[in-house]
Amino acid sequence: MATIPLDIDGHRFGIDRAVEADVPALVGLLADDVLGAGRESLDLAPYLAAFREIDRDPNQLLVTVRDADGAVVGTLQLTLIPGLARQGATRLQVEAVRLASSARGSGLGSALFAWAHGYAREHGATLVQLTTDKTRTDAHRFYETLGYRASHEGYKLHL
Amino acid sequence: MATIPLDIDGHRFGIDRAVEADVPALVGLLADDVLGAGRESLDLAPYLAAFREIDRDPNQLLVTVRDADGAVVGTLQLTLIPGLARQGATRLQVEAVRLASSARGSGLGSALFAWAHGYAREHGATLVQLTTDKTRTDAHRFYETLGYRASHEGYKLHL
Repeated sequence: MATIPLDIDGHRFGIDRAVEADVPALVGLLADDVLGAGRESLDLAPYLAAFREIDRDPNQLLVTVRDADGAVVGTLQLTLIPGLARQGATRLQVEAVRLASSARGSGLGSALFAWAHGYAREHGATLVQLTTDKTRTDAHRFYETLGYRASHEGYKLHL
Repeated sequence: MATIPLDIDGHRFGIDRAVEADVPALVGLLADDVLGAGRESLDLAPYLAAFREIDRDPNQLLVTVRDADGAVVGTLQLTLIPGLARQGATRLQVEAVRLASSARGSGLGSALFAWAHGYAREHGATLVQLTTDKTRTDAHRFYETLGYRASHEGYKLHL
């Protein structure tokens, strides 16, 4: 896809499909997080292998957001999930949302989600879903501002 | 895949990859539910279209569970989601879990999830996740018995 430009109060950002060369910066964003810090590694090999899995699945879109200087300031992963329920509804799942601390509070998050909702509609999705850790109260407020409802419990099991 | 047999206290069940001919029975299970009843339709066309989308995506597995008489008594949908986070972890998402009321409390649900966790491991997933409506308190107890933790809020947005 061509770069999607976002213009927020005179600041220019761009949304791109992630490429392999973005992986180190994307992992840096994942690690620069209160919950993510302890979960990530300095070895890039598992991330590059995972990137290739994501990249070859047409129902996955890993996104890189850059500022006007080309610095990577955001990422999220979109997954289209077809399903029988709700009259055969396709849902869009959003995972691994991260904005650099420098980019928070700028309106970039809202603009990025507005674009993601458009992507969902273009692909026939009628529902967007995500889970967020119960301790991320700032994120909860953000998603509620966008119209999301915390209607479900998000259960996880580590194997 | 070949039918996976489940033997529960002398009752025989079988797990299969769903085929198109299963769609009417699977939609019947989705509609036979306190929350699902108002969401489903009598027109099969959208379900058949959705089935074909699911069936052609190698990261999706829609499951049909039958009893010894061949009656469809359960379903769930498994989605493998590769990702960068957690050192490139693949997660398995479980959607659209339904057991016929006749099959609840029999141990079938636990056996079906034990199989799904094995499927996750075989496909390299280290995390299994699902969301369940906050009003489904019986389901919450069930998942907690299986070791799941409600660590996340499940947000949904209808487009």
